Amino acid sequence: MDASSELRVRLREIDDLEKCAALLYWDQATKMPAAAAESRGRRMGMLQCLAHDRLTDPKLARLLHRAEQNAGAGDEALLRIARRDIERATRIPRQLVDAMTEHQAKAYMVWTQARPANDFATLAPILRKTLDLTRRKVDCFPAAEHPLDPLIDEADPGMTAGQVRHLFERFRTRLVPLIAAIAEKPPIDDSCLKGHFPAFLQLAAAEDIIRELGYDFDRGRSDPTHHPFMIRLDAHDIRITTRVNEAFLREGIFGTIHEAGHAIYEQGIDPALEGTPLATGTSCGVHESQSRLWENLIGRSRPFWHHFYPLLAKVFPAQLAAVPEERFHRAINRVQPSLIRVDADELTYNLHIMIRFDLEDALLSDTLSIDELPEAWNARYAADLGVTPPDFRDGVLQDVHWFVHTIGGYFQGYALGNLIGAQLLATARQIMPDLDEDLAAGRFAPLRAWLTEAVYRHGRGRDPHDLVQEVTGKPLDIDDYVTYARSKYAELYGLQPEAFS
Amino acid sequence: MDASSELRVRLREIDDLEKCAALLYWDQATKMPAAAAESRGRRMGMLQCLAHDRLTDPKLARLLHRAEQNAGAGDEALLRIARRDIERATRIPRQLVDAMTEHQAKAYMVWTQARPANDFATLAPILRKTLDLTRRKVDCFPAAEHPLDPLIDEADPGMTAGQVRHLFERFRTRLVPLIAAIAEKPPIDDSCLKGHFPAFLQLAAAEDIIRELGYDFDRGRSDPTHHPFMIRLDAHDIRITTRVNEAFLREGIFGTIHEAGHAIYEQGIDPALEGTPLATGTSCGVHESQSRLWENLIGRSRPFWHHFYPLLAKVFPAQLAAVPEERFHRAINRVQPSLIRVDADELTYNLHIMIRFDLEDALLSDTLSIDELPEAWNARYAADLGVTPPDFRDGVLQDVHWFVHTIGGYFQGYALGNLIGAQLLATARQIMPDLDEDLAAGRFAPLRAWLTEAVYRHGRGRDPHDLVQEVTGKPLDIDDYVTYARSKYAELYGLQPEAFS
Repeated sequence: MDASSELRVRLREIDDLEKCAALLYWDQATKMPAAAAESRGRRMGMLQCLAHDRLTDPKLARLLHRAEQNAGAGDEALLRIARRDIERATRIPRQLVDAMTEHQAKAYMVWTQARPANDFATLAPILRKTLDLTRRKVDCFPAAEHPLDPLIDEADPGMTAGQVRHLFERFRTRLVPLIAAIAEKPPIDDSCLKGHFPAFLQLAAAEDIIRELGYDFDRGRSDPTHHPFMIRLDAHDIRITTRVNEAFLREGIFGTIHEAGHAIYEQGIDPALEGTPLATGTSCGVHESQSRLWENLIGRSRPFWHHFYPLLAKVFPAQLAAVPEERFHRAINRVQPSLIRVDADELTYNLHIMIRFDLEDALLSDTLSIDELPEAWNARYAADLGVTPPDFRDGVLQDVHWFVHTIGGYFQGYALGNLIGAQLLATARQIMPDLDEDLAAGRFAPLRAWLTEAVYRHGRGRDPHDLVQEVTGKPLDIDDYVTYARSKYAELYGLQPEAFS
Repeated sequence: MDASSELRVRLREIDDLEKCAALLYWDQATKMPAAAAESRGRRMGMLQCLAHDRLTDPKLARLLHRAEQNAGAGDEALLRIARRDIERATRIPRQLVDAMTEHQAKAYMVWTQARPANDFATLAPILRKTLDLTRRKVDCFPAAEHPLDPLIDEADPGMTAGQVRHLFERFRTRLVPLIAAIAEKPPIDDSCLKGHFPAFLQLAAAEDIIRELGYDFDRGRSDPTHHPFMIRLDAHDIRITTRVNEAFLREGIFGTIHEAGHAIYEQGIDPALEGTPLATGTSCGVHESQSRLWENLIGRSRPFWHHFYPLLAKVFPAQLAAVPEERFHRAINRVQPSLIRVDADELTYNLHIMIRFDLEDALLSDTLSIDELPEAWNARYAADLGVTPPDFRDGVLQDVHWFVHTIGGYFQGYALGNLIGAQLLATARQIMPDLDEDLAAGRFAPLRAWLTEAVYRHGRGRDPHDLVQEVTGKPLDIDDYVTYARSKYAELYGLQPEAFS
């Protein structure tokens, strides 16, 4: 076997081990009896360590070197990504990988109990442990200028804390006046979304919608969970998870479209990449660009609901029969500063992210302690969003991330995703001037085909920055998102341009 | 760390790998999109090989030896079972393990397609391969007198083909006249079990029943599948799977009680044994004794349905309101020779097992070839049960076992289970003379507590033969089962003793 083929076999074995761990995670979050958490955490850790051992085996590095010497046509992307992954992994000692996976499994189970109980005291030592483990990981990258840099680079290759901060600062100066102008207008009436919407009907309607968007249920499935996510187990097994609020129609449907957006990206990756490290999204930001494009840019648009509202009104005749399409469309686009990130409207959502980014920065830069975190959290929510969490549950404990990941490294991607999505969609609109007519007629295939060609099929084979530059003709920036947001919300709220510029 | 503690750590790692493979299997059989089968088979094989490598690592054998030299109180059972597992595994070369797992994953997928298509031609070379691999496994045990011996010893430690054959011959001479006497009587009317029984109602009723029997849903779950099974993933995660026939009430309910019987055994094992090779049932025969005890000896008894029939009649008022308890009880006990083992009544079921045992014997003794197998199968069904399979699908291809295991080694356990279950229950009745009153009042805890104390809690810590001898006061034999069967069916069918003795 030549070096390239042998490399592929070994990388596939690593991928297999990681995917086994992924199945254990999916099962824990959807099916497993809570009482079995202890061994589950140990086993996920064991599989991740086996994968890590193989990825950091010096024999693999030598094999990669030989493959690089004899690289054939088409090997370039695989060799580049394999080198990146091997070099990153080799910096992190096995004990740390072990400690993190075991901590995360335990932390997840404690969080699922302690968050509903509003129990910050139980979770504070867990957060301190996460912070400690995060610091140990950061220390593996001594050349980093800022402790967030190696964490951000893992999720959004090529980005630094400085770049994110600069982008967010400019973003913020355009966003805050727009949100302030909206706040001066009478609030949109979204009472049509409130009432009783049985979970099984919401799930059925959401599944019908995402099937039409292009999520292939023959190569995936949807299950309820506490904290929804998408997970890839195989090219033919890309699963989503959902959560439904029976008292509020918005969450379940848009949450499902969000996860389906991630899954449509993964299902669009060239199956020939399966088993290699190329077979996933190219960055957190680009991944979120797709969940948010389908959820917000497309999923909260007028043409989208022109097509889907009759279906939804038929599912909930008692609740929606008297609600005109336009009132529903306005209701799902109500902007209202609020406590919970995942339930936020698409504009204020970005402020939730910036709060988290700044707090992570402060925690890792030692200007904030875990004990001070709840107060800092509440102070920022009061200052930025004008709301104060009444408890920990809907404040600092609301997100699972700090319990199952590091502190820092991925939240930025959620706001970057908004920017990248808008930039990609602006390009798509230039190429497809009839896009809105397509959407209103339920024709989602042309947009999906363009995104598959430009983004999806490449997986990690296309660097996220190159991708944005080459597909949209310019580097990642805030302009297309700001243009989109201003135009949409000026019209919805009857704003004058001078109100927010 | 002393040798015993280190041994426990290593054995737990092996157990963890096996349990990860088990979760992959559970997911494939219940949740996974079919299109993802290829990588799933590869990953299960990989995990099983990782476990096998660790079990056959000479370092582990040396560690075991050291632990044996310094054995403390309470180590005896663990050391004995660890030695047994290590010595067995070490006889089987890694290439054979590899070849078997690869063959079994492929064979399972081909069988799921070719059996519904009635395609013996496609499956014949697969069976030849299974036979060849089985022979290679048997060859790893050169001291065996009969090729079935090492296979039987794996599932039912201490049993040989000769012992099973002797037991089955005697069993047969008592069973056949009883079944013949029943066949001369008018058949029991079981039309009350036929009609339309919605799956979700059957599942809900079955879950209510097994919860009362003692299956703990906080430490398990139940999911639909094609070929039901029970699987242990952790002391706190013991799952069952079920299949429901909407046109026939019997299969789903008794199939669920059967799997719950396996699971109640596993849930009764001392949690302190978790992570050691002791934490599972002590033999195939003893495991099946518990599934069959709860399914048949208890689950098809009058007192059982005196308690549960009102519940069931309430779930299916349209279908059962006019059916008296006694008619229902007779219907579920109808004896009728038939083609399909898993749907057979409790008496003729034993004949299905004996046919398989004899055919496996003939195949491994070279007196029968795979090409001759369908004809031999049909001849035996005609001779023993008076029925002739109209096709391969409901004949020689009906069971998955020869496609996912060896040929030989486990079917005997299903009939041994009937015998052991009856022998255990006869003992229980001596100790608990009011057992039937307890059952009729829905008090299942006393029987379960006795079985837990006598059987369950020990796991593999108690040798199956010792267990039967010590708990029942005599070696495994057919008398208690025959007494039970004669008494029950003489009464149900109005037989005179001279009709079947």
